Amino acid sequence: MKADQREDELDEIPESECLEILKQHSLGRIAIVVDGQPQIFPVNYAMSGRIVAFRTGSGTKLSHAPGTKVCFEIDEYDSAAGAGWSVMVQGLAVDATDSFDDVSWAAHAAAPWPVAPGAKPFRVAIEPSQITGRRFRRRG
Amino acid sequence: MKADQREDELDEIPESECLEILKQHSLGRIAIVVDGQPQIFPVNYAMSGRIVAFRTGSGTKLSHAPGTKVCFEIDEYDSAAGAGWSVMVQGLAVDATDSFDDVSWAAHAAAPWPVAPGAKPFRVAIEPSQITGRRFRRRG
Repeated sequence: MKADQREDELDEIPESECLEILKQHSLGRIAIVVDGQPQIFPVNYAMSGRIVAFRTGSGTKLSHAPGTKVCFEIDEYDSAAGAGWSVMVQGLAVDATDSFDDVSWAAHAAAPWPVAPGAKPFRVAIEPSQITGRRFRRRG
Repeated sequence: MKADQREDELDEIPESECLEILKQHSLGRIAIVVDGQPQIFPVNYAMSGRIVAFRTGSGTKLSHAPGTKVCFEIDEYDSAAGAGWSVMVQGLAVDATDSFDDVSWAAHAAAPWPVAPGAKPFRVAIEPSQITGRRFRRRG
């Protein structure tokens, strides 16, 4: 098999389609950098236009995310079909709990429902700088 | 429902059990910081003791991960049961392709099998500083 045939099986997903995929799901992961060390946490989220919104308690996500660059990601892999995809949102996290700028306003319109226990009175929004996605398939 | 009852449904997973879970899976995600911006990529991985090993081509993961702090994560959520878990490995990434230090040696022993297409001749190992996990359950 030629290298270029294999490369054909890795396709970029355009932003408009990434947004559709993001709207169809509700569980993803956020990466936050704490003292130079990235950490990844699963979060339930909801979309409001291009804004990713999630609720959180008073832990690492609230104390370190707002005002910093974060990454949000969802993916899926079907092992029987040998095919999968991933969508990545890079951007700036904003504490939208009591703010009324455009991003926070959009976040208020979203209704993320956390499945993890514990009070989560704070809202964090991600203002995307880049939304990208890839589809991949097992090499034949 | 009292707050402390809800908190009971979020349990920490001890490191020994995190390692068992890591050995039972093969697809996770790595977070890498590129110019202050975290990025998340799905990767196929294999464990060698406490070392996470994966193969990669000559892209972002190879050019930015080695020598930097990265995070590796796997998770699962059963929406019918309303329960899930996540395991997170924080640590230092090492280019183990041609190296024979202890971490690289351990990485050579692992046999990650990438499902995504493209040549992946390089091996990256993660030397963990911390391995943590959590189980969570939907609030009743």
